[in-house]
This record gives sequence, structure tokens and C-alpha cells, in this order.
Amino acid sequence: MKDKPLRSAPTPSVRRMPRYLRCLHALRSDRVEWISCTFLAERLNVDPTLVRKDLALTGITGKPKVGYYLPDLIMAVERFIGWDNPEDAFLVGAGHLGTALLGFEGFARHGLNIVAGFDNDPTKVGTTVADKPILDAAKLPDLAQRMHIRIGIITVGARNAQAVADLMLSGGITAIWNFAPVPLDLPEDVILENEDLSGTLAVISRRLAASGI
Amino acid sequence: MKDKPLRSAPTPSVRRMPRYLRCLHALRSDRVEWISCTFLAERLNVDPTLVRKDLALTGITGKPKVGYYLPDLIMAVERFIGWDNPEDAFLVGAGHLGTALLGFEGFARHGLNIVAGFDNDPTKVGTTVADKPILDAAKLPDLAQRMHIRIGIITVGARNAQAVADLMLSGGITAIWNFAPVPLDLPEDVILENEDLSGTLAVISRRLAASGI
Repeated sequence: MKDKPLRSAPTPSVRRMPRYLRCLHALRSDRVEWISCTFLAERLNVDPTLVRKDLALTGITGKPKVGYYLPDLIMAVERFIGWDNPEDAFLVGAGHLGTALLGFEGFARHGLNIVAGFDNDPTKVGTTVADKPILDAAKLPDLAQRMHIRIGIITVGARNAQAVADLMLSGGITAIWNFAPVPLDLPEDVILENEDLSGTLAVISRRLAASGI
Repeated sequence: MKDKPLRSAPTPSVRRMPRYLRCLHALRSDRVEWISCTFLAERLNVDPTLVRKDLALTGITGKPKVGYYLPDLIMAVERFIGWDNPEDAFLVGAGHLGTALLGFEGFARHGLNIVAGFDNDPTKVGTTVADKPILDAAKLPDLAQRMHIRIGIITVGARNAQAVADLMLSGGITAIWNFAPVPLDLPEDVILENEDLSGTLAVISRRLAASGI
């Protein structure tokens, strides 16, 4: 059964959801049953109005005075960001960054299941990283199609990133998570997220400069 | 000579600066001399008003009709984000992610100079990664103080991140770039940027779920 397409939501709100979720899971471990926006906001040191608006996006409604029933809230947030249904992904570029991501255990809890890595280095092809096979990049399009993979993660260098993206698209991949520090030229209907470390670096540098220390 | 503290600027604007800078450097390679906001906005496929506002933050003023003199604009943006003056940094956690960051050549162009890595694994201490020494983590506070290091990068696992952050603070580090997927408890005056991959992952999952494909 296929649900109807969900309505769009502001990206900053979506981006905050994992933080809520981490806090909610911790509270569940502490056997908390009901939780209010104000309490959650205090724990996370953010504005309660923001929390209320964000949580409302998930479609859940709280009870006056007591707030939300914790298991329901967790389910609503997970469903909202699609983490109730983990998604298989392919990663291309089994260098240090790729290896780090392949071995990152947190992804499974975050709705992402990297099922294989790809590389064109013959010394890497045929090996495994964190129990995941490293396959020949040339096999990606065919495998992606057969396995209905929708998410591709790019951890190659800037020079090869566009070629890898094209390879992914030819295999039917519709969402690309790009760690290469280069802009990609992709059709508009492709979901693209750039993990741009230079942006964060700029924020740190600027804050250091502005701190006048 | 010490400049007076710069006024604060909106984080999203600061975060966009590296994108502008990349484009501006590419244009300089193409021997472009003058550039308008509209042209830059078109190249980057963003709103010209946004570009104008962002660039105005750097203090530069364009000339009517011709726009900005490219070398001046590059200098203004670099100065604004503090990249005219590269900053030395220490990294703790010489695993795969740490190794990837130590070897990332782009940082030097982005105002960051990682001068050493630290770890407490005796098999790593004493080795080098990308020509940078891996030192015993216990030596960090003393070295950080003597070398006046202000930026610390955390690439250890979630369990050790807080202890590493405390170690950095004891060495006088004032800005922390945290790649560990865990919130850190730090004094308010510490500059903290969390590289939270789960946030991006939520955006991708949500967009895939909402696309109804």
C-alpha cells in the first residue's frame, strides 16, 4: 500500500527532527511517558514555540496540560522524516571518508542502510568495509536498477564527483548526498544535498574573528 | 595591530560565503574583472537580492552599472569570514573520519590549517597522516596552550566526545567543530559547531518520502 505524497515542510524544521528524536529516545529510556513542548524545549535549550510548530508538522496533536504520549510522538516524528522505513543506499568512493561513513553505525538508526560501497580502484574492489562489499563502480547502474536503490552517497574527490553522479542517475537513483566539495549539475527533479564542510568552517572562522579574542 | 571586533552576521549568510568564493575564484581564473550581483546570482542559481544583501555584509560597495571589482570582492569576502588569516587547529580522533579530514587539501584554502592529530591508540601515536603527526591525546592541553591553538576538531566516537571537548577547553581552545553524533555540554562562550549528518539525512529521507516516487 502506498501512502499519498506528504506535503512539503520547511527544511530547517526537518533538519531539527533528529535532535528531537535523540532527546525523545533518551527520555523513553528514562521511562518518561508524557512530554510537553516546553519540557522538550528546555532540554534542548531552544524556543518552545519553535518546538510546537515543528512537532505540529508531523500531524500529531497533544493533550492539553499533559502534552504528547511519548511512544506516539516518536512514531510521528520517525514517520514524518521517513525513518520508520529504512532506505537502502549505495556509496561511491571507498577512501577514508567513504570508509568512515560505511562504518558509521548511527545510520541504521537514522533510516539509512548503506548496502554496498563502490570504487574503481582494483585493490579495493572485492574487499569489504564494515561487512559491506566494495564493488566495481561500473556495476553500479545495473545493480541500482535491480535493487531499486534510490539514494546515492558520493565520497569521491571533486574531480570525479559529476561522473559518479551521472552514473548514479543512469541507475535510477533519485536522491544524491554529495560529500565532494564541488557543485553538481543535475536535473531539477533529483534530490540533492551537499554536505558542505566549508560552510560550517566559514561560520567558525567568522565567529572566531568576530569574537575579537 | 588588532582590528576591532566585527559585528555579528546571520549564520545562513556566512554559510553561503564559501559558495560565492568558489564561484569568484573560478571567474578570476577566467580573467573576469568586474562582476554584478545579478551575474553571480545567475551562476549560482540563487536570488539576486539575497546575493546583494550577503555581499553588503562584507562592507564592500559596488559601482553602479559595473558591479564589483573582482579582486576587491574576493578580498572582502575572505576577510569577512576570516579566511585571509588561516587558523591553526588540532584534531582529536585519528580514525577514518579524522584521517579523511587530516588529508583534505581543501581546508588550507578555507582558512584552516590542521597542524596535528591526536589519539590515545598507541599504534597510531607517533605515525603521520597526510604529513601531520599523530600525537598522544594527553599532550594536547599543554601543546594547545603553547601554540595558542583556538580551534579543536572532534572526530572520536560519541562516547569519548565530551571528554575530548573538556581536554580541549583545558588547553585554551575556544572553538570546537564536533563531528561526534552527540550533544556537548560546554560553557556558553565556547564557539560550537556540530556537523550533524543526521540532519541532512532527515532532509533527504523526508524529501524522498514526500516525493511519493
